[in-house]
Amino acid sequence: MLKIISIHVRNHPGVLSHIAGLFTRRAYNIESIAAGATSDPNITGITIVVSGEEFILNQVTKQIRKLIDVVKVEDLCYSASLTRELVLLTIYATAAQRQEVINLANTFGATVADIAEETMTLEFMGNNLKIDTILKAMEGFTTKQIARTGVVALPLESQLEQNKQHL
Amino acid sequence: MLKIISIHVRNHPGVLSHIAGLFTRRAYNIESIAAGATSDPNITGITIVVSGEEFILNQVTKQIRKLIDVVKVEDLCYSASLTRELVLLTIYATAAQRQEVINLANTFGATVADIAEETMTLEFMGNNLKIDTILKAMEGFTTKQIARTGVVALPLESQLEQNKQHL
Repeated sequence: MLKIISIHVRNHPGVLSHIAGLFTRRAYNIESIAAGATSDPNITGITIVVSGEEFILNQVTKQIRKLIDVVKVEDLCYSASLTRELVLLTIYATAAQRQEVINLANTFGATVADIAEETMTLEFMGNNLKIDTILKAMEGFTTKQIARTGVVALPLESQLEQNKQHL
Repeated sequence: MLKIISIHVRNHPGVLSHIAGLFTRRAYNIESIAAGATSDPNITGITIVVSGEEFILNQVTKQIRKLIDVVKVEDLCYSASLTRELVLLTIYATAAQRQEVINLANTFGATVADIAEETMTLEFMGNNLKIDTILKAMEGFTTKQIARTGVVALPLESQLEQNKQHL
């Protein structure tokens, strides 16, 4: 089971390692983690994607809720969430290959962020499916380096409204 | 001093909390952390932005290098790096305000990802300056929720080449 947990914590040193520790003590690996600022400078937002059995994950969520510096914990349903990840990808490309890379980038909504003598760097964002599609399209080129942010998510408000109407 | 540290680790439970712990034991708060997949399914890439005195940060970097599951540690120079962050922002907007939000989004290169009865969700990515500019432009609207990935970075290859030429 894939679970998205959105956590708001006060910016105290140690909170992040504390939370990460809660998952690792149960030998659950975190699929992705992303921690960034919120509109409140004292609060950091952490999005964790984790897989495992629902029962155990619910227990971990409960434990997170009990931590002193945790302000809010939200369990996001994958299908009613907007999920996005950002990728920076540097591939080897000769001058002769540049146009091909640019065409591929344009086709898939990626942006060329840098061109050097032997390499090109692309930036793109999307949900899992889109990221995988672009990475697949670029497989013909050798990857020099890649950096991914991990997934962030927000509730898909329009979907929540629709669900309410169906109740 | 602002430092970007790029770390590649083997996917063992506990590595992330171990690394986060190295920073927190010295009472340094991590400005942002992003952990995502790499092209090797056994390796996770972690980008950490941290501020503090250079001497201490160099010591922490050395300690990270010594951890068993750490495969690679790279110290990225802020000015010669491509830095990017992704933001999802849900704001309150009435039907009458929608066109204004769409116009602002188009102006600043943000995308409207969702429209609900009372809210709109935007997605955008960029370097710090761009993110701040868009958030500033949206200040007229009340934020319902925001999720940021934290910064990821790759060396700006074109810049590195130019620096080599200057040596």
